[in-house]
Amino acid sequence: MSAAKKSDLGVTPLSEDVSAWYNELVFKAELADRGPAKGTMVVRPYGYRIWELLQGELDRRFKETGHENAYFPLFIPESFLKREAEHVEGFAPELAVVTHGGGKELDEPLVVRPTSETVIGEMYSRWISSYRDLPVKINAWNNVVRWELRPRIFLRTTEFLWQEGHTAHATEAEAMEETLTMFGVYDEVARDVAAIPMVTGEKTPSERFAGAVRTYTIEGMMRDGKALQSGTSHYLGQNFAKAFDITFQDEANALQHVHTTSWGMSTRMIGGVILAHGDDAGLVLPPRLAPIQIVIVPIGRDEQGEATRARARELAAELEAAGVRVHVDDRDASPGFRFNDWELKGVPLRVELGPRDLEAGHVLVAHRVGEVDDKGRPVKQAVAMDAVAATLPGWLDAYHDALLERARAFRDEHTATVDDWEAFAAQVAVGFAHAFHCGDEACEDEIKSRTTATPRCIPTEGPEEEGACVHCARPSAYGKRVVFSRAY
Amino acid sequence: MSAAKKSDLGVTPLSEDVSAWYNELVFKAELADRGPAKGTMVVRPYGYRIWELLQGELDRRFKETGHENAYFPLFIPESFLKREAEHVEGFAPELAVVTHGGGKELDEPLVVRPTSETVIGEMYSRWISSYRDLPVKINAWNNVVRWELRPRIFLRTTEFLWQEGHTAHATEAEAMEETLTMFGVYDEVARDVAAIPMVTGEKTPSERFAGAVRTYTIEGMMRDGKALQSGTSHYLGQNFAKAFDITFQDEANALQHVHTTSWGMSTRMIGGVILAHGDDAGLVLPPRLAPIQIVIVPIGRDEQGEATRARARELAAELEAAGVRVHVDDRDASPGFRFNDWELKGVPLRVELGPRDLEAGHVLVAHRVGEVDDKGRPVKQAVAMDAVAATLPGWLDAYHDALLERARAFRDEHTATVDDWEAFAAQVAVGFAHAFHCGDEACEDEIKSRTTATPRCIPTEGPEEEGACVHCARPSAYGKRVVFSRAY
Repeated sequence: MSAAKKSDLGVTPLSEDVSAWYNELVFKAELADRGPAKGTMVVRPYGYRIWELLQGELDRRFKETGHENAYFPLFIPESFLKREAEHVEGFAPELAVVTHGGGKELDEPLVVRPTSETVIGEMYSRWISSYRDLPVKINAWNNVVRWELRPRIFLRTTEFLWQEGHTAHATEAEAMEETLTMFGVYDEVARDVAAIPMVTGEKTPSERFAGAVRTYTIEGMMRDGKALQSGTSHYLGQNFAKAFDITFQDEANALQHVHTTSWGMSTRMIGGVILAHGDDAGLVLPPRLAPIQIVIVPIGRDEQGEATRARARELAAELEAAGVRVHVDDRDASPGFRFNDWELKGVPLRVELGPRDLEAGHVLVAHRVGEVDDKGRPVKQAVAMDAVAATLPGWLDAYHDALLERARAFRDEHTATVDDWEAFAAQVAVGFAHAFHCGDEACEDEIKSRTTATPRCIPTEGPEEEGACVHCARPSAYGKRVVFSRAY
Repeated sequence: MSAAKKSDLGVTPLSEDVSAWYNELVFKAELADRGPAKGTMVVRPYGYRIWELLQGELDRRFKETGHENAYFPLFIPESFLKREAEHVEGFAPELAVVTHGGGKELDEPLVVRPTSETVIGEMYSRWISSYRDLPVKINAWNNVVRWELRPRIFLRTTEFLWQEGHTAHATEAEAMEETLTMFGVYDEVARDVAAIPMVTGEKTPSERFAGAVRTYTIEGMMRDGKALQSGTSHYLGQNFAKAFDITFQDEANALQHVHTTSWGMSTRMIGGVILAHGDDAGLVLPPRLAPIQIVIVPIGRDEQGEATRARARELAAELEAAGVRVHVDDRDASPGFRFNDWELKGVPLRVELGPRDLEAGHVLVAHRVGEVDDKGRPVKQAVAMDAVAATLPGWLDAYHDALLERARAFRDEHTATVDDWEAFAAQVAVGFAHAFHCGDEACEDEIKSRTTATPRCIPTEGPEEEGACVHCARPSAYGKRVVFSRAY
């Protein structure tokens, strides 16, 4: 992008200040706004449409893997949280508490759900009595509240939207299979829908979900080299089953506790999409999550304008029939203004249609991210008018692949295997470091206080090996290197 | 249904005690359960699927009428509610209040949204500045909380799910057009999707939404003759625009307040479906909201069972390809048990497939509601095996029409025009009464205390006429008769 264009947009360039860029972009692209109550957010239609598209992709896969949706209450008796010791320890500092209802002080305060393991545990204990009732595989789409002192739209807000899956199984093996299946679904959706190549793996004990036996995570690399935890899947063992007395009669008539799992992905993922793909000009949306995949900009005044607008509407109808989310921008504004606006909003393909194009029987197509000329302007490709509807859907798929490839290259360039402290500290300042760690939580804490980096996961990929802890030189744990980085 | 069948089910017959029937059925059909916190509900997968189907039908129509979805925060500063005097008066007694967050007492308590006019008013005042920004047409799918002292699953719960549409317009005429459009959408969905013929009309002043200038309502008649308010659409005038300072510069550069609307339909509608269509044997689901539209019950043991089960799965695949939600019940249980179970659950069509049917090359189809033989058993119709997928989708449509017709006939049989108090009191004990009313709120209150009936609406249909108030004999208001009835 040229300097002139940048200043027109009025967004601080990503390359100068990621944090300012992000905050300005979220508002200017009309993705979201701050709510009146501290830490809350309003998801505006353009941002919410991204969420709807992500929901659709996830929900279809949840149903294909045998889950049903349900709804559990927002309010949980405070005493429920206390039944699982680690769980309450993890969530107590973040709770919002209702003390008054219907004009009276309540006998027992109600917690606004930060997550629903406890209330679902209670319900499962009522519903499950025999091995014939298992497995129970339920997902819920809802809102949760976790008090945030330093809120950041999409990334950390006091209230956010998510889905939480909760399943109960007869055996550890079945519950572990479920945990890993949903971990795989998240990785697939991140890659095939959001075009973000994830580093996948298991959390170290200190980073586990409060109450989990194992937590699996997908971690995306943002444009500043930081990680964003984008979805987690937990094997909860029998912890919640014991706390909530979820038992079943097995085939031999013995009473057993079930094994449970939970897994979630949230509106945080929208923040991930912004930060994984954006650039100085604004948003770069992966086509499968783009509210508008193709914008058509008719150009020209008076009669010529009439003609290009009419043709633009016809093309839009053809593209819509081909399953494309398309928008005709026929606002009475300069082409440059309109181009910048849709660049800011990250629309994958822009179709320009001026009087000369109309005469030549083609349109000009610009990719939001792609080849640029020596002035930094996007190279526009001519597409014959009658080939538009047949050609552009395929270009959207190719664009998805290109974004994924670009993100993968960026991630790999900002990832290194390190063996000494100086290299480690330098690497976590710019990206991901694969390093040996002793597994001691105090050592993790020291690394964090010196670099702000934390262990993101013990990666699924990568060789099994042992070595000396990059920080304290004690023998490594986990049988593998650990991925460390700064994180959102 | 035979007496034996009724007792097998273990649901109190509707004809004996509607209230017991409803409460038992909601649990036995696994639609919902009580949550641990008083007044809250758990919507189980079978009930939630009805909600998802209703959501899909509504959401499609909202988008077709030019609305976009968004999300607004759950927590609203307490002071916001107080800005619109009537609004706070209406909602104050029902509020749940968060006083503590993140381990500290809050400076200003937060109200858990009972509805979002106030927080949306605040956001619209930030977003709207010019006539070019109008109209704003947004819908939100969310949960709201209104403290209930006498909760009833689906009908009155402390927390429920709904959608709330909120629009802002430059003129009263446009806002009124929007109000009536969405009123029409609700009536259409109730009729064409839920098979409930609504009485539509405007609320009398006492029954208006708190803060509205006009409230339009759709009122369904339940099997006990009571009304269920099933969806409302409000013209809010400039009340919220003034309270939240939502102004715009018009084309002549003058500053004006916008005109707003709001409209909502909720999980209450599931209660409406149960109570409008159910019978002694359990649920009767309208096919467009039925999680399972057709259940196939293969019959037979050993090899014969293998063969019918295999054929049942093939038929299910064919029906699924024809767009039908179909389920094969191959549980190891008697046909009678399985038939009763799906009757309880209200599945529209049951397809039976026994060894003799297999040999004859047909299936037997029973309608959940339809012709019965002299023993009260459903008449089963034979359908050639290879005609199943082509025939049954049309039968589902015809079944929808038949349910709607049945509900319409029931409503009309239980509706009367009355002119004197005795006839009025007798009529509201069994259904809807069309009667003149003076329009005085004190008179409405007296009618309510004597009969429990309330004015449901000034009906859209019905002649314009004047007369003497059925209760106090003063001249009638509204230029029409008013529909009175008991209500949920």
